[in-house]
Amino acid sequence: MSDMSTKWEDLPKKYETLAGRALTTAIVHDEVEPTCHPLREKNKFVISPGLLAGTPAPSSGRLSVGGKSPLTGGIKEANAGGLTATRLGKIGIRAIVIEGMPDTDDWYSIVVGKEKAEIVKTNDYAGMGLYDLIEKIGEDYDHRPGIIGCGIAGQRLLKSAGIFGNNIENTDPGRYAGRGGLGAVLGSKRIVAIISDDHGCDTPKPKDEDKFTEGRKALAKALNNHPVTGRLEDEEGNPYGGLKNYGTNILMNIINEAGGLPTRGFKSGRFDHAAKVSGEAVHELVDKTNKKFGDKAEGKYGHPCHPGCVMACSNIVPYEDTGKAHVSPLEYESAWALGTNLEISDLQDVAELNRLCNDLGLDTIEAGNTLAMLMEGGMIDYGDGPAAIKALKQAYDASSPLGRLVCSGAKVVGETLGVSRIPVVKGQSLPAYDPRAIRGIGVTYATSTMGADHTSGYTIAAEILGVKGKVSDPREIEKAELSRNFQATTAYIDSSGYCVFIAFAILDDDDGFNGMVDTVNGFLGKEIDVAQYGLDVLEMERNFNKAAGFTNKDDRLPEFFHTEQLPPHNVTFDVPPEEIDKVYEDM
Amino acid sequence: MSDMSTKWEDLPKKYETLAGRALTTAIVHDEVEPTCHPLREKNKFVISPGLLAGTPAPSSGRLSVGGKSPLTGGIKEANAGGLTATRLGKIGIRAIVIEGMPDTDDWYSIVVGKEKAEIVKTNDYAGMGLYDLIEKIGEDYDHRPGIIGCGIAGQRLLKSAGIFGNNIENTDPGRYAGRGGLGAVLGSKRIVAIISDDHGCDTPKPKDEDKFTEGRKALAKALNNHPVTGRLEDEEGNPYGGLKNYGTNILMNIINEAGGLPTRGFKSGRFDHAAKVSGEAVHELVDKTNKKFGDKAEGKYGHPCHPGCVMACSNIVPYEDTGKAHVSPLEYESAWALGTNLEISDLQDVAELNRLCNDLGLDTIEAGNTLAMLMEGGMIDYGDGPAAIKALKQAYDASSPLGRLVCSGAKVVGETLGVSRIPVVKGQSLPAYDPRAIRGIGVTYATSTMGADHTSGYTIAAEILGVKGKVSDPREIEKAELSRNFQATTAYIDSSGYCVFIAFAILDDDDGFNGMVDTVNGFLGKEIDVAQYGLDVLEMERNFNKAAGFTNKDDRLPEFFHTEQLPPHNVTFDVPPEEIDKVYEDM
Repeated sequence: MSDMSTKWEDLPKKYETLAGRALTTAIVHDEVEPTCHPLREKNKFVISPGLLAGTPAPSSGRLSVGGKSPLTGGIKEANAGGLTATRLGKIGIRAIVIEGMPDTDDWYSIVVGKEKAEIVKTNDYAGMGLYDLIEKIGEDYDHRPGIIGCGIAGQRLLKSAGIFGNNIENTDPGRYAGRGGLGAVLGSKRIVAIISDDHGCDTPKPKDEDKFTEGRKALAKALNNHPVTGRLEDEEGNPYGGLKNYGTNILMNIINEAGGLPTRGFKSGRFDHAAKVSGEAVHELVDKTNKKFGDKAEGKYGHPCHPGCVMACSNIVPYEDTGKAHVSPLEYESAWALGTNLEISDLQDVAELNRLCNDLGLDTIEAGNTLAMLMEGGMIDYGDGPAAIKALKQAYDASSPLGRLVCSGAKVVGETLGVSRIPVVKGQSLPAYDPRAIRGIGVTYATSTMGADHTSGYTIAAEILGVKGKVSDPREIEKAELSRNFQATTAYIDSSGYCVFIAFAILDDDDGFNGMVDTVNGFLGKEIDVAQYGLDVLEMERNFNKAAGFTNKDDRLPEFFHTEQLPPHNVTFDVPPEEIDKVYEDM
Repeated sequence: MSDMSTKWEDLPKKYETLAGRALTTAIVHDEVEPTCHPLREKNKFVISPGLLAGTPAPSSGRLSVGGKSPLTGGIKEANAGGLTATRLGKIGIRAIVIEGMPDTDDWYSIVVGKEKAEIVKTNDYAGMGLYDLIEKIGEDYDHRPGIIGCGIAGQRLLKSAGIFGNNIENTDPGRYAGRGGLGAVLGSKRIVAIISDDHGCDTPKPKDEDKFTEGRKALAKALNNHPVTGRLEDEEGNPYGGLKNYGTNILMNIINEAGGLPTRGFKSGRFDHAAKVSGEAVHELVDKTNKKFGDKAEGKYGHPCHPGCVMACSNIVPYEDTGKAHVSPLEYESAWALGTNLEISDLQDVAELNRLCNDLGLDTIEAGNTLAMLMEGGMIDYGDGPAAIKALKQAYDASSPLGRLVCSGAKVVGETLGVSRIPVVKGQSLPAYDPRAIRGIGVTYATSTMGADHTSGYTIAAEILGVKGKVSDPREIEKAELSRNFQATTAYIDSSGYCVFIAFAILDDDDGFNGMVDTVNGFLGKEIDVAQYGLDVLEMERNFNKAAGFTNKDDRLPEFFHTEQLPPHNVTFDVPPEEIDKVYEDM
């Protein structure tokens, strides 16, 4: 971007087996100075579709973006569904690396397609709400392109800014590689959108077609047969299966029941009104409005986030009074961050907050925790949905200090308001599981190379959801090995293009696991060791962070988790530092 | 403060030779968990008068306060003049250690005197402007007590909050141990003020009275004879001597001439209108208003900051239209931070900004850099004094997001506005010397245990002011030894109770140096090695910071000092990391 040039490069041999997170991590590790300022010319913004993106492997269309994070100061990979990964996979792009920074007030977009990579001046795209932007890009470009980019928050270089992606069948910018403020890195490069068009391109060809095909069939079968991810029907022919009916937000009642649902800014593990913003409530609202508004209704559950996803855990939440699409999707993490944790239990308010985040280009987890800090600091009352909506809307006004704050992340806002119980690790807000009640996820929060992040090592599967049997009591404190294993496997999955939710099926079903491995090995024509591949990715990330100045002191939860008891079980986070340090003791 | 109790303790043997910075550092090092949250119960707030405070040694009435800094996350000592050090010295208190945190919304003050230490509920003191508070305490307590405490900013736990102290002869809370946000630590303990009354107490007795007396006479002579600090008269009987006539703000024109005066948010090293806010301009204003308003005029230069100071470098800046006291003092650092660096050249505006800082309880250096970030982020125009005043006044309104921001320090505000050129080290704002033009002070900024801090190793004396001859070219890059020597000597001086400005005389005059040493040794009845004493203090501070998670990556200037050239000399900060790391290579 410094000289406004583009060039194509062959995939270097050393990156042959890398894609998705492994490749964004390797490029950032190899090419970005760890101590550089994340919002200046030395940082890079890297985009890489998962290895199998664009192939017919089931649920394999995830896109990774990476760089040095302005939120954590460390390495960052964030991933999402949407259309872009499959578009890039078909174009044959393993990664896009955006370097430098223009010395200009102009705004640009990047357009890629078959043998095409252009930097286009698009000042008219800047400053728009993202619903409008997606509609406009849809008018400007044929073939329903993949779109990712940053919104107002990223263009203003603010820490809660995520990378949005467009949805499959509507103009909701709801596909977020949300975390770590990477939207601000893209904004610092003066780029609004990256538009990808795979018209005229072919499906990527596996090296070992037979192994690949056998693998994808085995995996698809495992996914379809598993009660969490499956396409199952009861005796009356009604579909069942957790994700398809209730989406990720099926977790709301489960985690609440477990006493681990962070409420009122991490002051309780249970919220009396959690059910009102749960997946079941969304399901009911969709059914109700579909019945009432018939063909005009747009609500949906069992909606895929990217082409070829068989799990289809996403949704479209309708307005109650019109049945039209309000926001798509409303995930568990968002319903928690913008609902439960703020004690907001009006589903329409929560959907509106999520819509605003999508429109502004904000990570919902960071934005929700930020609103919690405004409540903790006394600027808004807990439970006041309209006030939270009003505060978030301030972000459209460039001259509003509150508007900037509300996009700046929980740490900055908590500190601005003198709050001493800010739930962040490495500067990044905690997700929707209280680490005092569920210790393994606390160890992941503490040690993840990404800052507090549930998806980087989702021990909840073993601690609460009973995948592979309930292998780890949530209140045990020996969690280093559990967290490390989840983190390593996740790093592999995040590189493959597969959604992390295939974990339920592959952990419970060996045929599914082998199927996954066969698709990757078949595609590459190589044998890859799953655990080692993941550990190698983690080691690069860990090394980057060390070189950026991180020590084991950064692998800790905030003090209040150790000193304030969490109702209803009245527990603190009791995992000792020595146990936490075991996760990465050899890295 | 957790159980509202007080107790007296004898000075432990291990602390026998420690006072001031050495003692606050030792207690924080020994008793505060380095990773604790600075605004919660585990942090401590330590107050210690310099060793010689209360004695007749010249200019020895400095007070140190210490704790873990909410601004830097590391150890912090800040010191100031005022009345409290001499009061505590005479009461016979070597240190006050404030521990714990009450679980209450009430506010307290601590009253100490002869055999008296009380915690008093003083809710009426909270939320007041500090000019009013000092007046009120003056009405409530006899004997013109020493007063230190925190203002609105500290009571709201904000990062720019300093510890104010009262002036000798007016109600200006202008004696600031400003840096590091220690006002917020006091606020977190729910304390507004510490009131000290030495009525009925005696002057502390040196162990070796003769040596002490001889030493203080030799030092006083050196101070009085030195052109920077002296009481000299020209042939016509007019006093001359830099500090007495022009105060610290004599530096404004000198540093501007050197091309090292940070201007417009560290974008230039020279400001065309610097002279308008210089010490010479203040001197002229005082003369003019004194002539015009006669007995009613309150302007002054050559004003001491604590009883017994022979240098008297402070001032009282009058309102131009009434001659009444506007602010006392206006120091170089403040005139720079609130003037030059903001391109504000109206002396009355600068004085008003300083008065507001004093009233709110803000460190002027941090507050000025914070205003610069508001300008850099486009919320205020550079050079617009009235807009800056208006922004700062927002701080009185508890519900104003801008009001909170303006007290939250340059880092938080810069990040909230997407600024990528934030002039901080370890989170603390840079003072009034651009490190690109004067590299030694840059090495001090980078390596000081305190975050960016000029007083912790004032190499300017050798690089610009020509003390002991101009021993170090400002543009040289071999500065590790220079900075280390200044840092060690300063740590000793900051412990003795002496003002750091005695450095001019003791560096140029061996009799003065020996006099200083004799006063300390005479007081203690021991022989102290100056350099080793200082190095021991630095080593404790360095160890604390390491245990808190600091690495050499924290000993660096922000990236833009390395990449953006500074006019007029068009230089960058070229000291390599290896040279910087030499400062503390054995600690």
